[in-house]
Parts: sequence; C-alpha cells; structure tokens
Amino acid sequence: MRERDARMALCCTVEPATIDITRQVQQQGAEAIWQGLVQPSSRSRWARRAQAFDLADMQAATDRLRLRFIVPGDDEWPAALGDLSGCEPVNDMGGAPFGLWVRGAVPLAEAVERSVAVVGSRACTAYGQSVTTDLAAGLGAHGVTVVSGGAYGIDAAAHAGALAAEAVTVAVMAGGLDQPYPSGNSGLLQRVAAAGVLASELPPFEKPTRVRFLGRNRLIAALTPATVLVEAALRSGARNTVSWATSCNRVVLAVPGPVHSATSATPHRLIREAEAVLCSGVDDVLEVIEPLGRSQASRPSQQRPLDDLSTEELAVFEALPARRPMPTGEVSLRAGVPLGACLGVLDQLGERGLVALHADGWRLARAPSARSVPRTGD
Amino acid sequence: MRERDARMALCCTVEPATIDITRQVQQQGAEAIWQGLVQPSSRSRWARRAQAFDLADMQAATDRLRLRFIVPGDDEWPAALGDLSGCEPVNDMGGAPFGLWVRGAVPLAEAVERSVAVVGSRACTAYGQSVTTDLAAGLGAHGVTVVSGGAYGIDAAAHAGALAAEAVTVAVMAGGLDQPYPSGNSGLLQRVAAAGVLASELPPFEKPTRVRFLGRNRLIAALTPATVLVEAALRSGARNTVSWATSCNRVVLAVPGPVHSATSATPHRLIREAEAVLCSGVDDVLEVIEPLGRSQASRPSQQRPLDDLSTEELAVFEALPARRPMPTGEVSLRAGVPLGACLGVLDQLGERGLVALHADGWRLARAPSARSVPRTGD
Repeated sequence: MRERDARMALCCTVEPATIDITRQVQQQGAEAIWQGLVQPSSRSRWARRAQAFDLADMQAATDRLRLRFIVPGDDEWPAALGDLSGCEPVNDMGGAPFGLWVRGAVPLAEAVERSVAVVGSRACTAYGQSVTTDLAAGLGAHGVTVVSGGAYGIDAAAHAGALAAEAVTVAVMAGGLDQPYPSGNSGLLQRVAAAGVLASELPPFEKPTRVRFLGRNRLIAALTPATVLVEAALRSGARNTVSWATSCNRVVLAVPGPVHSATSATPHRLIREAEAVLCSGVDDVLEVIEPLGRSQASRPSQQRPLDDLSTEELAVFEALPARRPMPTGEVSLRAGVPLGACLGVLDQLGERGLVALHADGWRLARAPSARSVPRTGD
Repeated sequence: MRERDARMALCCTVEPATIDITRQVQQQGAEAIWQGLVQPSSRSRWARRAQAFDLADMQAATDRLRLRFIVPGDDEWPAALGDLSGCEPVNDMGGAPFGLWVRGAVPLAEAVERSVAVVGSRACTAYGQSVTTDLAAGLGAHGVTVVSGGAYGIDAAAHAGALAAEAVTVAVMAGGLDQPYPSGNSGLLQRVAAAGVLASELPPFEKPTRVRFLGRNRLIAALTPATVLVEAALRSGARNTVSWATSCNRVVLAVPGPVHSATSATPHRLIREAEAVLCSGVDDVLEVIEPLGRSQASRPSQQRPLDDLSTEELAVFEALPARRPMPTGEVSLRAGVPLGACLGVLDQLGERGLVALHADGWRLARAPSARSVPRTGD
C-alpha cells in the first residue's frame, strides 16, 4: 500500500492523537505501521478496525463528497502541523495527524500562513460574542486568517466575524466533513468552506466524540502561531486548546472580562498565572504575531499639555484660580515660587498657550477640563 | 523650635513630596532645615511662606478641629511611610512626609497593619463600583483595612464597602482635614473617621491641588503592602498611585473588565505589561498579602468524574451512546479496545457508577450533562 493510502487507512482506524501510533508512524512511516496493524496475527487494539477498512470505498466517498485528502509533503499540507511530533503530550495524547480531509476555496497551507486561532466557550455571553466578532473581523481586515472549531458560541462568532470582513477562515472539525457539526451551524460552515477551508483528520461519516474534540483541539493550536481564548469557564474544553498551544510553544492570549462572569474565569486565571498574554483587541494580537508590526505605531500618543511641565511650572500653573485673574505677587506666594522665578515661569507658560497676562492679572488660557475639577482618583 | 514643631511648620510651608527638602530633612532633621528656610537671608522658594507661618495658630487650629498631628517615632506613625525615603522619585516628587494630621477612631499605625489600597477612577462604571464594593467588603470581612483617597467613584465605593463590612478604612486626603473633600462625600468621610482614620499631610484650611493629589497618592501606595487598581482610563490619575506603589516595591494588582470599556484600559495595560497582577477577587489579594494564607485552601476543587479516566477508559465510556444500550462486542469495536480489555474497563467504569450492565447491554449510568452534547469549544 502506498504511504498516502496507508495514512488514509490509519486515519480511518486509529483514534486521533493516539500517541504510540503517531510516534511509530513518525519513526517508521505509515506503510510499515499499517502493515503491522492489518496482519491477522496483530494484537493491536486497532486490529479489528484495520481489518474492516476498505480503501477503495473511502477513496470513492472522498471523491463523491468533493473532499481532498492531504498528507505531509503535499503542497497544501501546513508545515506547522509537523511541530506536533515534538510537543509534550496533553492528556496522554499527541503527535501529528496522519492526514487531513479538507474542503474549501483556499489551499489549507496558504490559508493558515498568517493565522490566529480564536476559541472559547460554546455557552458564551453576549459580551464574549461581540468581542469575538469584532476581534475576528479586525484580524480579517488585517489579512489574518481566523482558525476555530466551528462550534456554537465563540467559535461561531470567530468564523462569522472573519466572514464579515470577507477574510479567509478555517474550521477544524472533530468529525467527518460529510455532515457539518453542529447541524445548527451548517449554514455558517458552508460559508466557511466557500471562503476558506473545512478540515478534519476524521474520515467522512465519523461522528465527533469527546476524545476526538481533544484531538481536534491540538490541530487548531498547532496550525497557528497564536491562540486567543475569549471566554471559558473553569472546566471548559477550550482550556484544552490552550494546553495544546502551550505544549506546541505557541503564544496564548486571553481576553479579560467582567470578574463576576463565570466565562471569564479561565482567561483570568491564565493571565494571572502568566500562561496567557492579556488581549484587549486586534493590536495585542498583531503585536504578538508580527513583533515589528504596525500596531505599535498606530497607537495614538496620549500626551497632554501639562505632562511635560516641571514641578515648579506645575505649581505656578496650579496656583492660578479657575475663573478669575491673579496678580503675579499672589501667584508667587500661592505657588511657593519666588517672584522673579515665578515671572519667568509665567512667561514660559504664556508662550505655551497655557496662561495669558491680562490687565487684571494672569489667567488660565486653556485646558479648562483639566482644571475644572481637581484630579483625584480619576 | 522642637523637631515635632519644625515638622508641622514644614508641612505648612513646603508642598508635599518636594524632593530636595524631603531629602534634606531626612539627612539633617526637620529643625535644621526649618531654621534655614525661615532666616531672613533665605533664598529658598519657600522662604516667604516660612516667614508667614505661625506655629501657635496652627497648633490651636489642630486642637480646635480635634485633629492629631503625628510625626515619625510616634506610636501612631506607620513605619511603612519610612520606605518613601528610599523610593525612586515619580514626576520629580518623593520622600517621606514630615508629619500627618489624622482624625479617627483607630491609631493610624494599627489601622494599616493589615491593609490594602483600593483606588481607581472617579468616573467609574457601575461594573467598577460593584466590583470595588464587593472587594472592599470582602477584604474587610477578612480583617484587612482598605486605604483609599476619599474621592468619588472607586474610592468612595472602596470606603463604603469596607464600612458595610464594619471594617476599618483609611482615607488619605489631598487637602486639610477641616473640610472633607469632595463635599459630596462628607457623610461618607465622617463615617470613615468614626470607624477608621482620615489622614493628610496638608494642614487644615489647605485646598487640594493637582500637585497635592500626586503627593497624596504616594502616601496611599506607601501605607499598604499592595495597591489594587479597579478602573482607570489611559490618562487617569489613579495610574500615578500605581507608579508610586511600583516605586516603593509594593505589589500592584489590577482588576480586569470588559475590553470595550475605556475605564479598563489602564488595568489591562498594566496586566499585559506585567506591572500588575490580575485580580479577580478577594482571594487574589489575600494570596498576595498573605502568601501562606487560607485563600488557596478555600478554593473548591473543580474535579469531575471523567477527569481521571485514562485514554482507554475514556474511549470506552465515549463509545456508549447517550440513550440506548450497547452489547459489549459493539462497545469494543467502537472504542477500538479489544474485547477482553473492554470488559475489564466496563467493569471498572461500572464500579465507579459511570456505566451499568442491563439485560440489553451496557448503558450510561450518570453524567448525562457531560454527555448530552459533545464538548467542543465549551
């Protein structure tokens, strides 16, 4: 059997991320491992499935469903998935996928070249949904592909935001691509396929299971240089994607939220424990994936006119009342600055347009909002 | 003039945190510096104020207003303020206060022995207000004094939360204690004095100014081992308190919030840049001020029944359908676990109450909520 066919056979036989098999395939190649599994004398837990596998059937189904089956070395195969071979296992799972079924308008490798994973809770809040949509649309507008899992909640908002920006988005599924899961997202997932890519290491007709979601999460994490977690309760499955991202040396970002919100508990804990970088918007993501990018430069300067005053200048400025004029001598006394120095400072402040000399004394010339209320805790 | 009187005189003459004077006083004592200032030949910017100072008047006013004037070495003087002598200047300001006017039911040193500063924006949101009230009440319930600045917004919520827990709270003011500032908080500040302490390095009859708020912020930061910033826009004055806390080697915590909220911008930036630890509640604060405290132990375990299953056990568990029974052979095939091993695993799962054997096959015995929907992004 050819290596490519052996990889398809393994995908149909061995549950995703079964670490002993993925390691053996990495060392010996898929063909050798498949030959071992399929032998009548095989004592592997996968032997019965292997014996039941029909290559021609699966190839026909793949073609009939207009899916592409891709393997390492194909143009469309994302090199980043190779990193999974070297990652620490998560929950005793790990390793690169043997192959992937894909459907979509864009080659997968091209789609994820500039990409970020955006994941989170199915049971998200309206806050999480709006933050995710904005973030994904913003990333899309910067030409960054959003990768997610096609689920309800944060995943759906991530894909929808990217699509709204007419950007490429990738949904990695935990079941076969014959039928989109969950069915309530079938319209959204059709649009994902039309503008981007659907991908799965499960063959058609296979249903998602808990184990398969865990394995799928490792693909989302590995395909992208950074994973953004938007909302997740303490026991959320989205935490698992973060574990994979950490294990693969990907950057993890987390979006904070109201501290009363249970769905912000995991982002807050990750940030607090320095496993994630705080993400408050698109710039924070771009900064991570493009360290020398434009995001820094686009931040507006927040300098105010009073910020570069010396303490003495500030004291003189402060001595002036908000609404009435004041003679130089009184300014000097109130500011605690000797008369001669005080005059010099007032002149400088005048040159900067902060104060003005009138017939009845010195007056504030501008910045009333900074003066009208003393700045205390604000 | 006695050292204590010289310190009172300096408080009445020199603006708070004037760094050259605070340094000179630290090196040579208050009396020597005062003598220099008050001489007719003095060329200091403070000379005119010094010459106008009347000690007896100020002492009489202090007594009449039932204030206490305290200086280093007094029982009531908090030793923590001494740290300000060694801190890096902030905005060219710094140094320990010469003395403090205090009013209240509790000696200041005792009040701040176990304390946390809670500060933030005057223009806070309802979210910030509720988080602050809860946090301060929770800290109060743990016997932690909340120190703040008596301003509108977060400060007021901090004092009010502490008072609601019948705890001690300290308001450090930027003007004289003759008249509470802001006047809208006068009722609150009276309650602070009744249950805790009002303190200021400004003498009675002095009004707050921008410079005095900056100087006051250093006292809030220095009096406590940790400062919690709840809400602050990018140009907020509360950021200045954080700078002081950092300069004094105090721990800074910041409360996250919705990323769309302008008042969460500074907390988020501080957390992102690792200048502040994320604070999502009382436990996070207690953990910082009581490293071996009870907060860790009080966190409930979030363990779930499925969490300690091996991959094989999970595969078998997952193979069982949600609502119908399944014969052992079919479970074995679906799970990819050989029949003998599968029976053993099913028995173990049965002992743990997760599955049960019925006449028509194996059924899930519990945890329907974990099963009914495959766990994807949630």
